[in-house]
Amino acid sequence: MSNSFGHLFRISTWGESHGGGVGVVIDGCPPCIPICEEDIQLELDRRRPGQSEIVTPRKESDTCEILSGVFEGQTLGSPIAILVRNKDQRPSSYSEMKDKYRPSHADFTYDAKYGTRAWHGGGRASARETIGRVAAAAIAKKVLTNLYPGIEILAWVDSIKDIKADVDPGNVTMETIESNIVRTGDLNAVDPMIALIKETRSDGNSVGGIVECVVRNAPVGLGNPVFGKLEASLAQAMLSIPATKGFEIGSGFQGTQLTGAEHNDSFYMDGDTVRTSTNHSGGVQGGISNGENIIFRTAFKPTATIMKEQKTVTTGSEDTELKGRGRHDACVLPRAVPIVEAMTALVLCDHALQHIAQCGTK
Amino acid sequence: MSNSFGHLFRISTWGESHGGGVGVVIDGCPPCIPICEEDIQLELDRRRPGQSEIVTPRKESDTCEILSGVFEGQTLGSPIAILVRNKDQRPSSYSEMKDKYRPSHADFTYDAKYGTRAWHGGGRASARETIGRVAAAAIAKKVLTNLYPGIEILAWVDSIKDIKADVDPGNVTMETIESNIVRTGDLNAVDPMIALIKETRSDGNSVGGIVECVVRNAPVGLGNPVFGKLEASLAQAMLSIPATKGFEIGSGFQGTQLTGAEHNDSFYMDGDTVRTSTNHSGGVQGGISNGENIIFRTAFKPTATIMKEQKTVTTGSEDTELKGRGRHDACVLPRAVPIVEAMTALVLCDHALQHIAQCGTK
Amino acid sequence: MSNSFGHLFRISTWGESHGGGVGVVIDGCPPCIPICEEDIQLELDRRRPGQSEIVTPRKESDTCEILSGVFEGQTLGSPIAILVRNKDQRPSSYSEMKDKYRPSHADFTYDAKYGTRAWHGGGRASARETIGRVAAAAIAKKVLTNLYPGIEILAWVDSIKDIKADVDPGNVTMETIESNIVRTGDLNAVDPMIALIKETRSDGNSVGGIVECVVRNAPVGLGNPVFGKLEASLAQAMLSIPATKGFEIGSGFQGTQLTGAEHNDSFYMDGDTVRTSTNHSGGVQGGISNGENIIFRTAFKPTATIMKEQKTVTTGSEDTELKGRGRHDACVLPRAVPIVEAMTALVLCDHALQHIAQCGTK
Amino acid sequence: MSNSFGHLFRISTWGESHGGGVGVVIDGCPPCIPICEEDIQLELDRRRPGQSEIVTPRKESDTCEILSGVFEGQTLGSPIAILVRNKDQRPSSYSEMKDKYRPSHADFTYDAKYGTRAWHGGGRASARETIGRVAAAAIAKKVLTNLYPGIEILAWVDSIKDIKADVDPGNVTMETIESNIVRTGDLNAVDPMIALIKETRSDGNSVGGIVECVVRNAPVGLGNPVFGKLEASLAQAMLSIPATKGFEIGSGFQGTQLTGAEHNDSFYMDGDTVRTSTNHSGGVQGGISNGENIIFRTAFKPTATIMKEQKTVTTGSEDTELKGRGRHDACVLPRAVPIVEAMTALVLCDHALQHIAQCGTK
Repeated sequence: MSNSFGHLFRISTWGESHGGGVGVVIDGCPPCIPICEEDIQLELDRRRPGQSEIVTPRKESDTCEILSGVFEGQTLGSPIAILVRNKDQRPSSYSEMKDKYRPSHADFTYDAKYGTRAWHGGGRASARETIGRVAAAAIAKKVLTNLYPGIEILAWVDSIKDIKADVDPGNVTMETIESNIVRTGDLNAVDPMIALIKETRSDGNSVGGIVECVVRNAPVGLGNPVFGKLEASLAQAMLSIPATKGFEIGSGFQGTQLTGAEHNDSFYMDGDTVRTSTNHSGGVQGGISNGENIIFRTAFKPTATIMKEQKTVTTGSEDTELKGRGRHDACVLPRAVPIVEAMTALVLCDHALQHIAQCGTK
Repeated sequence: MSNSFGHLFRISTWGESHGGGVGVVIDGCPPCIPICEEDIQLELDRRRPGQSEIVTPRKESDTCEILSGVFEGQTLGSPIAILVRNKDQRPSSYSEMKDKYRPSHADFTYDAKYGTRAWHGGGRASARETIGRVAAAAIAKKVLTNLYPGIEILAWVDSIKDIKADVDPGNVTMETIESNIVRTGDLNAVDPMIALIKETRSDGNSVGGIVECVVRNAPVGLGNPVFGKLEASLAQAMLSIPATKGFEIGSGFQGTQLTGAEHNDSFYMDGDTVRTSTNHSGGVQGGISNGENIIFRTAFKPTATIMKEQKTVTTGSEDTELKGRGRHDACVLPRAVPIVEAMTALVLCDHALQHIAQCGTK
Repeated sequence: MSNSFGHLFRISTWGESHGGGVGVVIDGCPPCIPICEEDIQLELDRRRPGQSEIVTPRKESDTCEILSGVFEGQTLGSPIAILVRNKDQRPSSYSEMKDKYRPSHADFTYDAKYGTRAWHGGGRASARETIGRVAAAAIAKKVLTNLYPGIEILAWVDSIKDIKADVDPGNVTMETIESNIVRTGDLNAVDPMIALIKETRSDGNSVGGIVECVVRNAPVGLGNPVFGKLEASLAQAMLSIPATKGFEIGSGFQGTQLTGAEHNDSFYMDGDTVRTSTNHSGGVQGGISNGENIIFRTAFKPTATIMKEQKTVTTGSEDTELKGRGRHDACVLPRAVPIVEAMTALVLCDHALQHIAQCGTK
Repeated sequence: MSNSFGHLFRISTWGESHGGGVGVVIDGCPPCIPICEEDIQLELDRRRPGQSEIVTPRKESDTCEILSGVFEGQTLGSPIAILVRNKDQRPSSYSEMKDKYRPSHADFTYDAKYGTRAWHGGGRASARETIGRVAAAAIAKKVLTNLYPGIEILAWVDSIKDIKADVDPGNVTMETIESNIVRTGDLNAVDPMIALIKETRSDGNSVGGIVECVVRNAPVGLGNPVFGKLEASLAQAMLSIPATKGFEIGSGFQGTQLTGAEHNDSFYMDGDTVRTSTNHSGGVQGGISNGENIIFRTAFKPTATIMKEQKTVTTGSEDTELKGRGRHDACVLPRAVPIVEAMTALVLCDHALQHIAQCGTK
């Protein structure tokens, strides 16, 4: 169960960081959606390692192969299997991890739960697992665009540690975000953020931050009243991304500082359209999208792997010390941006199909 | 789909605020668990209206009836259906809502999605829906205690607007929390919080806040690596509660202000037990519980219903004004505490059964 | 899991034969479907005990109450909960069953699996459980008719023991079937069947038989290629009905006696419509409906409860004898007819919503 | 949804007959189960084409590759992805099928449902899809043997057209079944069956038949009372296999010819074990296994592809004729045997994990 996501546009990811590869099977995709490997590769390239000077130098081309479900450039309606082979594997970098648990990693809990662990890498806890999500989301985006032509999903780095970007979710563009290697929406924040990441890395340390995401031109009606509230699905989706510690939508935690009179979003007519004058709701009311921008934020902790000596224990229950090795991101935020977008697309696509199933309209 | 929660300990809630009643069906409950209506009533009484001077005076005894699945004081392993009749219904209080959308409520989105709405109350968006969750969780708690005798789930009000409690999650007790009508864990915060709620109510306004929750003596091994990460399930669970806007676990959003060297939780041996010296992880690593306290926080917005004139629109697409009527909480936090606990118990119980299914041990 | 059926039009039944009642919760029903308690009662009356001289005299009015999900005569899109109270309970009839396992009943396996059993009746194995299915199907039929106005689901008794009816699935009518208390489609078979049932009952014995079902004017396109083949869903649905031992579609087991040249259904054009000249496929090809009549048959074993002394064992592991008591059907077939129809409607309704979700058309 | 099977031991198959390959992802497999590619290959070799003179000569080695979820010879508890590349593709054999619908195949219904079709082969309707099931079942069998060491799943050809084998389900052995290329359990039936298949093939025709299956030494307690009855899951599983038309368990359709007094299975004590003196129930009572042999039969229609001219229609809605080409089985029964076993293993493994989850014991 734990490796599938979605009810109708349902993805099942598989694969460890070291082994035959990673991939995804997508079940429930509508037929006759145009898709090719290039569409998917484009998204994978945004999350792959080695793409810029501030991310891990692990050299993975992450080349995808569509194994099924697509015929003559269109989806068949049958499962779409996508495979990405692992290439640049260096199990030797991990030999010490066989016997020592890396702090704030999954090594200990995997061993405790399963009685076994793919110690020659991060195994299933590796960020490589997200390749399957990003590949699947490339198709989800096609489905969404087919249903709602104007829809846009944009994520960006809102903060790295204490450096905060100043971004207008209503107007930020993909061009701006992709124009800088940090993937922030505020060009004034780019240099300070890059400087912080480089300084942190040279110190063998790491930093975290916040990714913000907006969905523009989403239709009214996505989401369900109770356990399938749109924000509940988004929260699950975001907290399923490695290294995340928090999720908030609309006013979020800061919203608790307002009174109801300040917080409520008044309705007004904008021609024939019902609009709200503020958007503390973050585009969702009663669990259902209301047509305003859907806005939410996800907190990422500082990368657990650091090049400093740390106290830990051995698999044989003895106290010891461990210093990180291998190739890692000192800051995952730039590479997290396409993953946040991907999970958002998967949530929306699944809810779109659910809505169509029950209500019969787009 | 949207009205069921959990995979193995699976609940399906039903019911509108006005109508025959509300309830829940629980499927997958282990057999031979002792349970009676009093066990359930105890929890329902903690969430019902009218229990203190700072919550809504709506008079609902919320008396539950177990209709199936329990025989001679024990669960049968068959579905447990629980019914709570609606009593104190005053549709007349809502007559104006038939034609006007209440700001930051679900009225508009329900109409837009379904083309219909139970306008004589909050319908499915009413907090009465959570009765089914609390009733089911009373049973989930029994199952959990049966599996892990020392386990404790405690939630409390951590803040109301800008009044912040000072609580030690490792030591706070149910007795302290239940000793005050605000349900905070800091007795010094009780009077200021009550004063703020009363003042707010007399002003026809509302306030929100944060509920914190700790799970103590949870076993190692609950949760799954990817989409079923324990924190992902908890995030979905919390964001499915009405009026929530955010979720964070462990260090949460504040954790983004630390470096990896500061944030990592070092392991050490405590006798035969692997422990961490800090708990920024919030008791979960790689999606799986590590035996430390599971700690998380949920943000609740100020109640949407206020007794002030607000701008809105009619179902006929005309601008208008609306002033709240009926009996409502100026602050939902005290009644949200048992609901947060309930959703936590449901998540843990479901994950416990999943863990046993796959790994064969408790 | 075991008590829910369907993915999108999802029902969860609950209830034991003795206890608070039985019922169902329906999740995923489209909104704005006209429905009232009378619509449901009509179907329940076809399956209830005491309706004729050849079925069990247990006196249950089986009066249903819609508790939620319906407002002003229409579905809301929220869960529809339906309750039927148990009335004519005689636990004393079952006192002997507390200590002795009834042959070919669920007593032994329930005890062995769960370590407990509602011995004062059939518990969850009682045919009363099917009330929830029939009630839910009354709504499913409304949804289907709304989508496909001409669709008809008709089941009838095709044989009782060795008395075989002669029925044309293409032309048999509900009027014919409901005109006789056996619910067969062949009026010449009515008297012999009634005579056999009465004779069997007076002998304290029981008989089984076969129910045939046809779906006429079903759309092309329902069902999925692999595990969700329409016949796979129907087979699961039929074998989930108490006392069933077999399912076959189209040519069924007899089809194994034909060669491919004889068995293949040739296509031909009937105006603009693709038709088949024979229908050995039973209206389904590759798991998907092809527009021809969907025809299948379900075998019901003779009722397990008989008024004759039988060898069995006690719960204390000793050999003993037992003679049936209580009020039972000597032949369940007449009452099975509406249940077969109900499960068929549930399968089709669920597949219809699945089809709409993926393919976007009816 | 349609391409996944099982709730806890959950498989998702993917792949078309022509394209990158076919495969499966298994989610929920217990950890630390020894498994290697040879274990899987052994089962795949039993179903692959070209294995004997009476099956299709299509030359596929069907070599499997485990891509994930297995480490150092043991399962990790993470998803197991298995890939089998397509090799011997001859799309030219299918060029005529692009424009003409093969009778009793899925061509027409796929086009009608999806608006597209992988016409250069059977696509998703190809028997190659079952490779993923057989591969997954090789692992399911390991899990089952680990839980219930003595358990045996044996299937054999019970009849081909009107040639009926005489087999004792209690004593037939895998050695006997695998000793002959028909895979029947009656050595006297081998030569007549082979002769019939050869004669049929040389005539360009095809035949069907019945596969019987027994599960010996199954534990008491597998299955659930209502929709998850063991026989309901088996029925769905069997009817999901291509070319199946019927399923019956225990006495099946013939059981309708008996009275209750004849049909009931009396209980008796066999030492400490509760046994039944007959087994009309087929090893399942009330949906739950009772410890007796689980016995059921599945009907397979004659292969739809025949080398004779048949009437059909074009995709352009014109009447036409078509004669089968390509390499096909004149009788699928011998290759269906391992597929029936595979689906049985998948059902039992999933129910075993469900039972452990709810009841906490094997």
